[in-house]
Amino acid sequence: MRHFLSVNDIESLPDWVDEAITLKQNPYQFEDLGKRKTVCLLFFNNSLRTRLSTQKAAMNLGMEVMIMNFGSESWVLEYQDGSVMDQGTSEHIKEAAQVVSQYCDIVAIRAFPDLKDREKDEAEEVLSGFAEYATVPVVNMESSTGHPLQALADAITLAEHTPKARPKVVLSWAPHPKALPHAVANSFTQMMKLQDAEFIITHPKGYELNPKITQGCQIEYNQEKALKDADFVYVKNWSSYTNYGKVLHQDLNWTMTQQKLGQAKFMHCLPVRRNVVVEDAVLDGNNSLVINQALNRTFSAQIVLKKILEAL
Amino acid sequence: MRHFLSVNDIESLPDWVDEAITLKQNPYQFEDLGKRKTVCLLFFNNSLRTRLSTQKAAMNLGMEVMIMNFGSESWVLEYQDGSVMDQGTSEHIKEAAQVVSQYCDIVAIRAFPDLKDREKDEAEEVLSGFAEYATVPVVNMESSTGHPLQALADAITLAEHTPKARPKVVLSWAPHPKALPHAVANSFTQMMKLQDAEFIITHPKGYELNPKITQGCQIEYNQEKALKDADFVYVKNWSSYTNYGKVLHQDLNWTMTQQKLGQAKFMHCLPVRRNVVVEDAVLDGNNSLVINQALNRTFSAQIVLKKILEAL
Amino acid sequence: MRHFLSVNDIESLPDWVDEAITLKQNPYQFEDLGKRKTVCLLFFNNSLRTRLSTQKAAMNLGMEVMIMNFGSESWVLEYQDGSVMDQGTSEHIKEAAQVVSQYCDIVAIRAFPDLKDREKDEAEEVLSGFAEYATVPVVNMESSTGHPLQALADAITLAEHTPKARPKVVLSWAPHPKALPHAVANSFTQMMKLQDAEFIITHPKGYELNPKITQGCQIEYNQEKALKDADFVYVKNWSSYTNYGKVLHQDLNWTMTQQKLGQAKFMHCLPVRRNVVVEDAVLDGNNSLVINQALNRTFSAQIVLKKILEAL
Repeated sequence: MRHFLSVNDIESLPDWVDEAITLKQNPYQFEDLGKRKTVCLLFFNNSLRTRLSTQKAAMNLGMEVMIMNFGSESWVLEYQDGSVMDQGTSEHIKEAAQVVSQYCDIVAIRAFPDLKDREKDEAEEVLSGFAEYATVPVVNMESSTGHPLQALADAITLAEHTPKARPKVVLSWAPHPKALPHAVANSFTQMMKLQDAEFIITHPKGYELNPKITQGCQIEYNQEKALKDADFVYVKNWSSYTNYGKVLHQDLNWTMTQQKLGQAKFMHCLPVRRNVVVEDAVLDGNNSLVINQALNRTFSAQIVLKKILEAL
Repeated sequence: MRHFLSVNDIESLPDWVDEAITLKQNPYQFEDLGKRKTVCLLFFNNSLRTRLSTQKAAMNLGMEVMIMNFGSESWVLEYQDGSVMDQGTSEHIKEAAQVVSQYCDIVAIRAFPDLKDREKDEAEEVLSGFAEYATVPVVNMESSTGHPLQALADAITLAEHTPKARPKVVLSWAPHPKALPHAVANSFTQMMKLQDAEFIITHPKGYELNPKITQGCQIEYNQEKALKDADFVYVKNWSSYTNYGKVLHQDLNWTMTQQKLGQAKFMHCLPVRRNVVVEDAVLDGNNSLVINQALNRTFSAQIVLKKILEAL
Repeated sequence: MRHFLSVNDIESLPDWVDEAITLKQNPYQFEDLGKRKTVCLLFFNNSLRTRLSTQKAAMNLGMEVMIMNFGSESWVLEYQDGSVMDQGTSEHIKEAAQVVSQYCDIVAIRAFPDLKDREKDEAEEVLSGFAEYATVPVVNMESSTGHPLQALADAITLAEHTPKARPKVVLSWAPHPKALPHAVANSFTQMMKLQDAEFIITHPKGYELNPKITQGCQIEYNQEKALKDADFVYVKNWSSYTNYGKVLHQDLNWTMTQQKLGQAKFMHCLPVRRNVVVEDAVLDGNNSLVINQALNRTFSAQIVLKKILEAL
């Protein structure tokens, strides 16, 4: 494996999930693997779980970790080919990516979308720029359109808690006051397509995800109908894709409640806004898996770093 | 010991001080104790001494250290139960504390007061929130009302320099242009109550500290009288407690001078404003212990981390 | 060696360059040297290469690394003797430098000039303040007037690529939209004076560097003439020194092109503004050494840290 940019870079989802669950029992088993190896975590946006879990995963493997907040601690990067850099950008991605590659063995990148220009966001200039010019493997710590480390953690969580070989999993949109990216929903959907499951996406009309990603997935606009007999309900807000980056409405009828959830397990990637996205009773109840999902972030990152280290 | 939140969590002040002084001779003696253990330092406010000394202390014990500036690098937290999170806060302390706990073995927190609402500050929502919801031990790196790592470092410094079994120690208010918290004065006072010493607090009228904390302490409004025959003078500014968070005046008659100090040793937690809080001659003289106090921050943190590690 | 503040602190340039080139073959050869040793990197300004390469160099030597962004994460420092600190500064360099020294074995500092007051910038209050009051060795990670770690990396790069014992090396000014410091040009010039080379500085009139630094150097205002038969061309913008800190003009006739460069190797310290300082064709061509220079930053830092560790 050269880069880990999307769910498609998971060579075998069941194998990786199994291996992660084994690793979780003995996180330090491969602490010699990362000896003298360094991962550089570059943040173009804020982070809590991703930053700490990826750092912990690397340390579990015996790696050194360098962290940089690119925006506030370094220079503003240019991504366009051939540009005359006489304005706000100080360094081209061509140089930055090659240079950073020389100080570490793996580069991990977090870069959110602006949610203003769909074409620009889908071009993934930061992640793609590093993937193109870096001379070491690049890991996606959430880009404009994907969050594969989260999806892999979710797959581990599903495997640990599934009551049956072919569970029913529902991805349900929820209201939120701010315009949020599609990355988590995209990667979760892509990951579910690799699972043996009954998978349904439910959201109000107008909140359809990128049809290339949901292609082949069942979409149900009636939340109640979608949730019927679900084993897992993954709740997440995203802004409109068609009317790109817009909050069309914040319909609180879509807030997840204990009553709607029934016996299903509740999942969310966090951070979550209580009593907007989901009511307290769900998060504080026994069927919430959100803390488990967060724990599994360490092991999804650790599996990815391990695979990369083994291939170096 | 579960948490280290205040001076009251010091199980035995004399024992811990003795142990710290021993540790100082051989800081790496327990470097295997922290193997595969991680402390996560979470800063909601700026820090120099606390950050570097706590990091050094953890490294001396062989621990891994993860540092996050919560405000600028992560999400704004919600602390109220049952709140509808449709405004500025993105993540509830319930999730944040549980999640962070999963990536480390100890969480250390710095969160200053706003000095606007006394009741809110005394509720210590950040520190208490982490202490309530974290599933690992929590260490106070200065909260709204206390700075026990500083007080423990001060106790070590007193022990190293005391000329007699029962020294006279004076805590003297000093002027300052900004409204400062009571945390250092509170914890120093609480710590002094565990010492065999003649302890006097002196300050202008109106600058009385929380009476629950100074209960049983001698308070003297005449600085000259208070300072008479002192062995140690601990100088510190704090804003009004009664007229909460207000700078009533900046009376430069209370600035500590070499003349007032006489033969006493001078102490201050730093940072200190020269020629406002204390004149240059004192800080540059032989009786200043401020650099020693700062050095002992490493060993107060190291003792606390060691005690927690031993109890894990 | 006590401090590494300028090119003048390089004891023997040819020996250090040779040693760095050897070290580059086996970067972990001295990983026991830094055991239980800590370097504290203090940034008063942004950094990419310097931060990551110095951290990597320290880790290669087995050191622990503590990093602090002094401006945003700590307190505003006072540098004047005898000042009454009742304004914006919270801590005096006297205390800060002594205190930080107690938490580490080496302190490294980055502090850029304001480019407003030449005398003030040349006083190097931050670097000099730390050098005066720190009780451990201080390393310059780019100060107001010098960037010796860059110059040392440049010397390594020259040695690796020189086609002859006495190459022709040209330092050529280039246009830039912002006022930039003289540090890189100064240190490169100082370093070149220690080399056996034909060294020429070329720039438009008005962009003369500090004559104390260029003393004895050949200065040629005609860029074409200067570049003739060059083996290496080091391109760099700097603001006016005489008309201190001013951008007199941004004459694009001084942009480096492939045609001007001819067969010479191209050097630049990065970050570089493409198609302003130098055209794409040069950076993307085979004669660019900029990525090599950046790689050698690790080994210039590693040699400096190694020399200091050996002398501790």
